[in-house]
Amino acid sequence: MTTVLYSYWRSSCSWRVRIALKMKKIDYEYRAVHLVKDGGEQYSSSYTAKNPMAQVPTLEIDGVVLTQSMAILEYLNDTRPEPPILPKCPLKKAIVREICQCIVSGIQPLQNLAVLQKIGETKMEWGHYWIEKNFHALENLLSKSSGKYCVGDEVTMADMCLVPQVYNAERFKVDMTPFPNITRINETLSALEDFKAAHPSMQPDKQ
Amino acid sequence: MTTVLYSYWRSSCSWRVRIALKMKKIDYEYRAVHLVKDGGEQYSSSYTAKNPMAQVPTLEIDGVVLTQSMAILEYLNDTRPEPPILPKCPLKKAIVREICQCIVSGIQPLQNLAVLQKIGETKMEWGHYWIEKNFHALENLLSKSSGKYCVGDEVTMADMCLVPQVYNAERFKVDMTPFPNITRINETLSALEDFKAAHPSMQPDKQ
Repeated sequence: MTTVLYSYWRSSCSWRVRIALKMKKIDYEYRAVHLVKDGGEQYSSSYTAKNPMAQVPTLEIDGVVLTQSMAILEYLNDTRPEPPILPKCPLKKAIVREICQCIVSGIQPLQNLAVLQKIGETKMEWGHYWIEKNFHALENLLSKSSGKYCVGDEVTMADMCLVPQVYNAERFKVDMTPFPNITRINETLSALEDFKAAHPSMQPDKQ
Repeated sequence: MTTVLYSYWRSSCSWRVRIALKMKKIDYEYRAVHLVKDGGEQYSSSYTAKNPMAQVPTLEIDGVVLTQSMAILEYLNDTRPEPPILPKCPLKKAIVREICQCIVSGIQPLQNLAVLQKIGETKMEWGHYWIEKNFHALENLLSKSSGKYCVGDEVTMADMCLVPQVYNAERFKVDMTPFPNITRINETLSALEDFKAAHPSMQPDKQ
């Protein structure tokens, strides 16, 4: 049974899953869903049958169809525990999930494509405002939790959320000077092979 | 060691955690954080020292301080497995988390207080638009996953996310006619004792 990832090169939610698939050494077929062309391929009825939110990613794996990047990351770790992408200790696990949610519910939804399209002309200021505001909170969290990576010295789900969000911060021209921990961890992670392979510039649909 | 919940009566994220604490039979002290009075008590330096995102809830438990409702729900289930609020089967677990994320990253962040304040005058239309749009996706997911509750016949984290979101839909005057599964499950859940006790109208800071 082939594992299939429906993805868009620059989608931060797809990117999170690409990193996890690489780390877990799961081979997959990449199917591009172009979020902009012809009003957005994610709105086609064949795609929304798989993903009712009309978002990427969607993962076909083990004979089922999964959506929502965080649910997918947890599923991959539940079914393929090695290498772990969550710590064993419940408290450390909570800290990883806290950082994840700070990004995936606190920042990313406010600057995703559908929201920016709705905001219209002032979308650059809008995205900039929310990323910068909540990066202060994220920097604070990381100043307490981080070692080499977001939580200690092992790569976790939190790192998979961080790197795509920093890429978006750069697109929105957020000055990174006030965020030394975010900057440092992003640089360390970006040098890892699995993270390099999952980068937008390495995807078949990159532009 | 006293368990302390920093909460606001009408906050949907606090409400999720209140339901879980009731279900897990964890006694706690309720400390109200008024999100509107004097520009918002969540911005005080004593509170942001606990919760850098300046949001509710914050939970003090087991000698640690936890933020982000989904991280808290997972922690409670990791440390107090009975009664479970996640299924054992990895696929069902993924479906629960998918529904949770559809709400907690797909809908709630777009109609939370800070975003509505930034939107200004058109905030009622803005909130209405996102809730209604994404309720179509949620209804679709639930038409496949639900039994008595969101996923089968056991109460899970997904149910803890659903009920507060329906309350918000009502505040934003979303017509619920197109959403028979959401409506039915919400009614069934709202009759349960633990859900009744966690309702905004039962909190000490209700207005």
